[in-house]
Amino acid sequence: MVCLDRLPRAVALERAGSGAAELVYLDERLLPGEVRMERAQDWRAVVDAIKTLAVRGAPAIGVAGASAVALWACNEGAGRATACGCAEAPGRFAEDMDVAALEVADARPTAVNLAWGVERMVRLAKGLLAEGADPSQVADVLFEEVKRMEAEDEATNRAIGAFGAELLPEKCRVLTHCNAGSLATVFYGTALGVVYSAAEDGKIERVWADETRPVGQGARLTAWELAQAGVPVTLICDSMAASVMAAGKVDAVVVGADRITANGDAANKIGTYGLAVLAAHHGIPFYVAAPFSTVDFSLADGSQIPIEERSAAEILPQAIEGVDVFNPAFDVTPAHLITRIVTERGAFAPCQLASLGSKLMCFLPSEAQGGL
Amino acid sequence: MVCLDRLPRAVALERAGSGAAELVYLDERLLPGEVRMERAQDWRAVVDAIKTLAVRGAPAIGVAGASAVALWACNEGAGRATACGCAEAPGRFAEDMDVAALEVADARPTAVNLAWGVERMVRLAKGLLAEGADPSQVADVLFEEVKRMEAEDEATNRAIGAFGAELLPEKCRVLTHCNAGSLATVFYGTALGVVYSAAEDGKIERVWADETRPVGQGARLTAWELAQAGVPVTLICDSMAASVMAAGKVDAVVVGADRITANGDAANKIGTYGLAVLAAHHGIPFYVAAPFSTVDFSLADGSQIPIEERSAAEILPQAIEGVDVFNPAFDVTPAHLITRIVTERGAFAPCQLASLGSKLMCFLPSEAQGGL
Repeated sequence: MVCLDRLPRAVALERAGSGAAELVYLDERLLPGEVRMERAQDWRAVVDAIKTLAVRGAPAIGVAGASAVALWACNEGAGRATACGCAEAPGRFAEDMDVAALEVADARPTAVNLAWGVERMVRLAKGLLAEGADPSQVADVLFEEVKRMEAEDEATNRAIGAFGAELLPEKCRVLTHCNAGSLATVFYGTALGVVYSAAEDGKIERVWADETRPVGQGARLTAWELAQAGVPVTLICDSMAASVMAAGKVDAVVVGADRITANGDAANKIGTYGLAVLAAHHGIPFYVAAPFSTVDFSLADGSQIPIEERSAAEILPQAIEGVDVFNPAFDVTPAHLITRIVTERGAFAPCQLASLGSKLMCFLPSEAQGGL
Repeated sequence: MVCLDRLPRAVALERAGSGAAELVYLDERLLPGEVRMERAQDWRAVVDAIKTLAVRGAPAIGVAGASAVALWACNEGAGRATACGCAEAPGRFAEDMDVAALEVADARPTAVNLAWGVERMVRLAKGLLAEGADPSQVADVLFEEVKRMEAEDEATNRAIGAFGAELLPEKCRVLTHCNAGSLATVFYGTALGVVYSAAEDGKIERVWADETRPVGQGARLTAWELAQAGVPVTLICDSMAASVMAAGKVDAVVVGADRITANGDAANKIGTYGLAVLAAHHGIPFYVAAPFSTVDFSLADGSQIPIEERSAAEILPQAIEGVDVFNPAFDVTPAHLITRIVTERGAFAPCQLASLGSKLMCFLPSEAQGGL
């Protein structure tokens, strides 16, 4: 039986007793040993949490980034702007917000969700200021906007899950990489949302979880999360996926994405591209599950996605003299290796994205266009 | 400048001051932090060293296995057999040797070299006994036979290196997996023997070393060994090889092998098979470098190779409730993904092996046929 009751929400914006806004988040660096919720009222602490991978996963850092802007507005920006006098307050607020927002958006480069979440907040705030709202009213609206994003995230993931589950056969053995689970989102997950939805339909026999070096999101997060939820899971090293596929023990690969370009190329955790090549070689369908906001229509193809390089110490904690280390955190899977991109709007062939994007631009409410 | 002077010999059989035989071996579990040579006079300690990966690498455990039989003969078997009386001594010696040899050969299942090294000793001993030699004479000959194997190993590796180096282009960027280096042999290495030989010709620009989870032979051994030898090396996680290939930064993949079957399939460290698929996808040649004795002509294809499964704790030191772990130590690369098998007798297309094997059986001296 699948049961998600034991999974904490990765991020949630709340009001402290003092009235200050605070972000309650799970410090995922401590998993699976310890489930510790942290509370941050300082937006800079949230930036640090994103940089240090305490909060990670593209959808989760989108909401965490938006939350950081809300924390700035509620706990710092509104008060400071108001203190400098009514006439100057809106201008000062907008100016300071831009500085803070830039710092938040720059915390990590690859996932489009972070910039998207921050931009959604800035755009909303500036619209309200233009309409004559004062900074403290704007701050309250930003707080509520984050709560709306949280609810949207879960609803989006459940929709992704339902569309993805339809693609999987009975007794499905899914292989996944990194953690695109509930822990990578506000709740429920994208790739693992597909697994949970299929498991609720009784279609999941087992999940193969790649450990996902060097940070171990598969070993520490996906394996733990699936076990908590009651889904049968087997942990393997990244290098074992090929022989598990060759043995006929994988029916589908399902992964998340940090950014998808207009042509359907997808950036995701390093190792994803190799899995896609292996899946194609073995005739196994390869699904990318992500919210539609992950699609960055401003980029023509994956070569334009900035790829974060992280520190050598993640791979080699004790440096060895004469040994260089290369540690890219993401890679790009070309569209032709992706069977379907599964979003909350349906499952699409990658080549359908571009035309879909231009159509959706006409229909979507303005705030949703931030992601397009 | 390539310089191998700083590399210790992985295994060497010696005479202690007492006259007892002892195996001097590098405890590779302590690298790169500590270069510690251990001395074993008890053959059972050598079996433990092989099981616990203190001594590892197919050619090295072949010689270590033979050494264990020599230690048994010199330090235990000859004395015990002689003590039971002249008439019974040869029979008792042969019987006890079979028991010890079986235990040595069973220390690890996948590499054919271990069984080959042990069998070479047993066959030699039984031949001498049949000719009327007494156990202590046999023990002395076994000791000398190991010294011959050590010398042969280095000569073999240098020949493999020379044949392999011819296949590489100028300014070659080689990707390798696990450690098929000097540390995996008596000296010089197989896959890294190719690198050293090419580097001596000024043809190596850089080596990409996969870290090789879960035991980290790439991170701890290959990266250290290459840096000691002065070869430029960049360490990556196993999952990064695909994107390094896609970026056009790999000119050849060179790996070792633990067993090659008559049809040219090759078992090697887990992850090798996936690399071969990736190399084929990117049009990169894939070379397997191994002594000819690695070819097991008794097996028709790779499906017959026993694949060792090791403990879950190698991947997940702290078990997580509800999480299964699968830890195969090797995988099999099918012949059609291998560009050339590089041996001390030349570099062959995998499909040439079978006919080559039957020809060589006619020409080789009897002791070399043990490997065929």
